[in-house]
Amino acid sequence: MKKQSIGVGLMGLGVVGGQVARVLSDKAEMLAEQVGCPLVLRKIKVLEPDLARPQAKRMSARLLTTDEEEFFATPGMDIVVEAIGGEHPALEYLKRALSNGQQVVTANKEVIAKHAAELLALAQKKNVGLRCEASVGGGIPLVSPFQYDLAANEIRGIYAIINGTTNYILSRMARDGLDFSSALRQAQELGYAEADPSNDIEGIDAVYKLAILASLAFQSQVRPEDIYCEGISRLDSRDFRYAKELGFAIKLLAIAKQSNGSIEVRVHPVFIPEDSFLAKVDGVYNAVLAEGDLAGKVIFLGEGAGALPTSSAVVADIVQAARDISLGVGNRLRWRLDSGKVIKPVSQIETRYYLRMNIADRAGVLAQVARVLGDHSISISSAIQKEADKLTQTAEIVIMTHPAREKAMRQALDELGGLEVVKEINNFVRVEV
Amino acid sequence: MKKQSIGVGLMGLGVVGGQVARVLSDKAEMLAEQVGCPLVLRKIKVLEPDLARPQAKRMSARLLTTDEEEFFATPGMDIVVEAIGGEHPALEYLKRALSNGQQVVTANKEVIAKHAAELLALAQKKNVGLRCEASVGGGIPLVSPFQYDLAANEIRGIYAIINGTTNYILSRMARDGLDFSSALRQAQELGYAEADPSNDIEGIDAVYKLAILASLAFQSQVRPEDIYCEGISRLDSRDFRYAKELGFAIKLLAIAKQSNGSIEVRVHPVFIPEDSFLAKVDGVYNAVLAEGDLAGKVIFLGEGAGALPTSSAVVADIVQAARDISLGVGNRLRWRLDSGKVIKPVSQIETRYYLRMNIADRAGVLAQVARVLGDHSISISSAIQKEADKLTQTAEIVIMTHPAREKAMRQALDELGGLEVVKEINNFVRVEV
Repeated sequence: MKKQSIGVGLMGLGVVGGQVARVLSDKAEMLAEQVGCPLVLRKIKVLEPDLARPQAKRMSARLLTTDEEEFFATPGMDIVVEAIGGEHPALEYLKRALSNGQQVVTANKEVIAKHAAELLALAQKKNVGLRCEASVGGGIPLVSPFQYDLAANEIRGIYAIINGTTNYILSRMARDGLDFSSALRQAQELGYAEADPSNDIEGIDAVYKLAILASLAFQSQVRPEDIYCEGISRLDSRDFRYAKELGFAIKLLAIAKQSNGSIEVRVHPVFIPEDSFLAKVDGVYNAVLAEGDLAGKVIFLGEGAGALPTSSAVVADIVQAARDISLGVGNRLRWRLDSGKVIKPVSQIETRYYLRMNIADRAGVLAQVARVLGDHSISISSAIQKEADKLTQTAEIVIMTHPAREKAMRQALDELGGLEVVKEINNFVRVEV
Repeated sequence: MKKQSIGVGLMGLGVVGGQVARVLSDKAEMLAEQVGCPLVLRKIKVLEPDLARPQAKRMSARLLTTDEEEFFATPGMDIVVEAIGGEHPALEYLKRALSNGQQVVTANKEVIAKHAAELLALAQKKNVGLRCEASVGGGIPLVSPFQYDLAANEIRGIYAIINGTTNYILSRMARDGLDFSSALRQAQELGYAEADPSNDIEGIDAVYKLAILASLAFQSQVRPEDIYCEGISRLDSRDFRYAKELGFAIKLLAIAKQSNGSIEVRVHPVFIPEDSFLAKVDGVYNAVLAEGDLAGKVIFLGEGAGALPTSSAVVADIVQAARDISLGVGNRLRWRLDSGKVIKPVSQIETRYYLRMNIADRAGVLAQVARVLGDHSISISSAIQKEADKLTQTAEIVIMTHPAREKAMRQALDELGGLEVVKEINNFVRVEV
């Protein structure tokens, strides 16, 4: 029996929720044509303070409620859209909607990253769809390509710039020679970074998104705590100067690789060759490179955040959920987490490294440094030594290594730190090629 | 009732068909897990000479047939995959499969570009899916993002590098200063261009692909003959030198724009700013930039051809068709062609232009040229005049214009050609920003 209309309940009327409500209203005709019947917004759950906002004032008062019970008691609500963000109470709301047998659409990276397994099991039990395209990369199609378009591939690697705030800061540091704190301040002034920017600059936001992408790509549970993470705050303008000199860009990359049944997942700054595609993704753009055994390298690029791009993904998910309802389909999603791959500890990864350190300015010091590295089977591919500082009698050296084990590198760094001639190890950054 | 298995019939066992057969066999377990039951290859339609090829020798002889009737009489063939290419008899085979109520997957850009309307109507009548992800951009997800992920957007423009052969040739001309015929010869030697390269270098291949993308994006019928088309053969190494001097790259772009209910569709060489993303897409890579009112600019990039990438798309379509069969869904695709938008003739488009011409080397000539352009409301944004050739007493000038109407530009070119002081109009190329 063909439905007369499909009801939507919206939780949250902030930046994203407000824009979703606007699209459902402004594009009602186009969406009805796509679904086969009208999408009707039946109820919006808001917080008390939201009632005074312009996006709430635009809505008919009878649509708004601050009461969870009233929201979930609304009849004819086939799809529940969660645009609240944060872990709680969003998790509880999603579980409640799934338990009710409602199709669920969410933009919530934190909940999906942390609770995908529980939510997917519930969705499967209740035979309803759980869609989360907007949780990663704003308006860039990512979740759906991994679920459908790349389904025939074994995904070998993901290399992603998925945090616009840090990418903006790093782009400014690279282009304008700014130090980290000035670049951060400018990002804050422009609204690209929050007053408390730690979630972005420490890499936590990228970790959530990588957990989702890796879980999808590898059909295996990758939790945020499985992902090794370093933020960007210890990068110095000097690192950018050396990177440029060596032909590299510095990016915060989210990396996931699989080989021989084990998975490597990490978020940290990397040196990447300046002529690579990802090196050219500047400012608030996001880009995800996926490498499949059949498709080869595929890159998805676009605006990774913002109300409009995020609403594009949320409404696409609503349309798909509505078409499933029209077609009598409960859950058509392919997202298993049971392939049982092992997460490799970061000590076992192998990359090239960039090292910057201050050493005593006297004969034989570089040889000592090289010997320590050699003792740990780390070979040097190139080294730069700038003129010494007469006052402190130290010199800055930069070393690029050939691929080495992280464990060996850590041991070597410990040992180097103990040498009398090494004044300071200023930074070390992994290199991806 | 859950199916025990889903049967697949494959038409064509060439480069693509052979690889699809191999993936279905090599990845049988993974695909079965995704579909929920095994995919079984029931019959392969080949041509007589194909029987001697390695990919045919690998297959069990009882699977192969050269007989169309035997192929279509095969029982339990739920999905028909067409990997023959060309217009006929592929069109007739597709119609036959749809008429039988079989789900159809095709990699055939020519048939879809020319006959989408007829095939989609038949698919709708028979309530079966017609999938063609592999028809554009090899392994890059394109058809599916336009159908699903960008469904909430009004697509304002598409800017696409969708022919690897021409992109390889142009990349070589730009990078190595080769002239067109040397670059083409090298492309042929490397297997990037065919012995008869006209389909690629004249832009016909790109026209087919753009017809498909524009039809999808605008939900309106765009036929190959609606698309204005120029190939790349009249580009000269001098144009590349001037482009570089002016800060541009030269690419063969497939462009589709819509505004105020009308559509502009064209394939021709363009100057694009050298720091734009598409300018950096070199070699055999393809990239499609789509601009939506919500998602903003989204770029999809990857290998646009080749057996492995194409098989990635074909098998993804097979998996989706199989899941629809499992779920009891006939046709879930959103692809209407009835939005009734008007195609704008090329004379009405407006772009900036690059002009290169030889003029008599004497005072006042540039002023004469400028006056003719001015008479047609075309204003000059910059001009380069190189030192004159003493022998011929001519000078080469390059003019970049501000945006102007194509019609005005053509009239101006006619008039310029008639001036005694203009020795030759060497080239004019549109500029996109």
